[in-house]
Amino acid sequence: MSLLPETDLLLPTLAARLGAVAKRFEQELVSDLPAVNILSRHVENYRGKMLRPTLVIASGLAVRANPLFNLVSPANHAIDDSLDTLGAVVEMIHMATLVHDDVLDEADLRRGGETVNSLRGNETAVMLGDFLISSSFHLCSSVGESWLNSALGEMTSRLCSGEILQLSHRGDLTLDSKTYFEIIRRKTGVLAGACCGLAARLAGATPAVCEALRLYGEELGMAFQIQDDVLDLVGEQRIVGKTLGIDLRKGKFTLPLVTHLTRCTGEIRQSTILAIEQCDVPTLLHLIESTGSLAAAREQAAEFVNKAKARLSILAESPARQLLWSIADATIEREF
Amino acid sequence: MSLLPETDLLLPTLAARLGAVAKRFEQELVSDLPAVNILSRHVENYRGKMLRPTLVIASGLAVRANPLFNLVSPANHAIDDSLDTLGAVVEMIHMATLVHDDVLDEADLRRGGETVNSLRGNETAVMLGDFLISSSFHLCSSVGESWLNSALGEMTSRLCSGEILQLSHRGDLTLDSKTYFEIIRRKTGVLAGACCGLAARLAGATPAVCEALRLYGEELGMAFQIQDDVLDLVGEQRIVGKTLGIDLRKGKFTLPLVTHLTRCTGEIRQSTILAIEQCDVPTLLHLIESTGSLAAAREQAAEFVNKAKARLSILAESPARQLLWSIADATIEREF
Repeated sequence: MSLLPETDLLLPTLAARLGAVAKRFEQELVSDLPAVNILSRHVENYRGKMLRPTLVIASGLAVRANPLFNLVSPANHAIDDSLDTLGAVVEMIHMATLVHDDVLDEADLRRGGETVNSLRGNETAVMLGDFLISSSFHLCSSVGESWLNSALGEMTSRLCSGEILQLSHRGDLTLDSKTYFEIIRRKTGVLAGACCGLAARLAGATPAVCEALRLYGEELGMAFQIQDDVLDLVGEQRIVGKTLGIDLRKGKFTLPLVTHLTRCTGEIRQSTILAIEQCDVPTLLHLIESTGSLAAAREQAAEFVNKAKARLSILAESPARQLLWSIADATIEREF
Repeated sequence: MSLLPETDLLLPTLAARLGAVAKRFEQELVSDLPAVNILSRHVENYRGKMLRPTLVIASGLAVRANPLFNLVSPANHAIDDSLDTLGAVVEMIHMATLVHDDVLDEADLRRGGETVNSLRGNETAVMLGDFLISSSFHLCSSVGESWLNSALGEMTSRLCSGEILQLSHRGDLTLDSKTYFEIIRRKTGVLAGACCGLAARLAGATPAVCEALRLYGEELGMAFQIQDDVLDLVGEQRIVGKTLGIDLRKGKFTLPLVTHLTRCTGEIRQSTILAIEQCDVPTLLHLIESTGSLAAAREQAAEFVNKAKARLSILAESPARQLLWSIADATIEREF
């Protein structure tokens, strides 16, 4: 991710805050049982870009940089503290979804390392995910704001509903793009939206700013998911760091394929259905490209990025706002 | 469950309150997505004895029947409301553990009906469990007490740690009874303890009464688990309503077996290890009975019931206290 010089000023602050988030994350998971601690340490290996805590910290800083849109005093240690906790909470929820997704997807690789389920069996992965969810709610309650607990519970319920919606359309050749967007809004958009919207509220933003940042996060999350979909088809396993073609094998049709299925007819459609049945990714990719559906997915991701960036216009200029802008661009520039 | 005449007076109240709990349970799970509602309705089939909500309501009534131990006014609609919500919260957590246990145990039967995973696959069962956990935290936050959210998160984390501890000792022939008791305290005792202890606190009980009721619940839960262990070996599948011998097949050694392994030597030990490897329940039961280990487990369960009942002496006599007493007795008298 290449950031503009302006945002470089923020990087030491951001690094220090992410360090605080990581410490809180680890402290919450410490158990009196060695069996639990061994698993928790394994989860550390899943930790990647810390994108969600970065969204929390950057949103908080962007709000606090704009005293006009900030209902509370601009410097407040208690607010920083709450934001660091929220950062650890959302990262824990994200880790739980990765651990449970690995059960779902029978994935052999995740971030280039071995998954919990391939190491210890599905049962342990299910319980570790449950432990992470429980711990995130416990940590969240330490902020002492009832609305935050309620918002977290609502958010995670929506997240699960998105996964359930996706599972109910497994292998569904008639899945339309409207339903597809609803799936990714829930399963990826809602968490990223909560990172930004809840951080804004903790930082004391007005309701209009909270809503704008929530939508920024949601649209960013949707762009991120479409880029994941694209990389699942065209990425290099070595760079992406997880098993490719999983979506297809599990009957989860992603945007390039959903678009292609609405565009193709006759022989191409027959070949497509055969390639799906045989999980033949190279052939399927060739067919999808023939109807321009891969390019269309990339364009859709870019459109969500543009929408997300436009939401930021409610904030005055600041290095933190610039950072949020750059994160949006980086979402679709990445190859991993 | 045969109750004394005194508790009969309570039954209409209890039935009405459990009706309110069930309504709150259903309302919380209503989704805008048909795919989610279909699954939620399926969960209704899992609903059994409503033991945990009954513990919540009975504990609240027992505290409220004793004005001396009650810090708040004895009649309070807001307290009843919070207790009904807590009843739905703990039932939802319990349902989540059943749904996720079915993934873990590859069980084909649960309460005589088909399990979510055998109907829809493990992936849907994992997500449905996650949805139930999320919804329970969301519902809990509606009570508006930060300490309650924190206590729920801590309790569910301990519950998961118990499952992880058990999984880490899978197939462990050297599992000792101390570790076994720690496993069942966490995986079953802690939730039942929370039902009673948190209900007492919501009802305005003094800390000493809250702690006594928490311990009552924890010990009752442990007796309940040991009885489950015994029934998994000797019960009739038709009456118990779930696949038997599962614990053994999944390498989860229960109290009768743990005790037996510390008692047997030589040829009996060799036969025992062979029966475990072959999952031969009838032979294993015969061996376990030969060292008196089944009777010892039943005695241990009875001891926990007696301990639990002794905790109730802190409460003045009342029909609700009598109900708690009867529930403890019924725990080890049941055959299902």
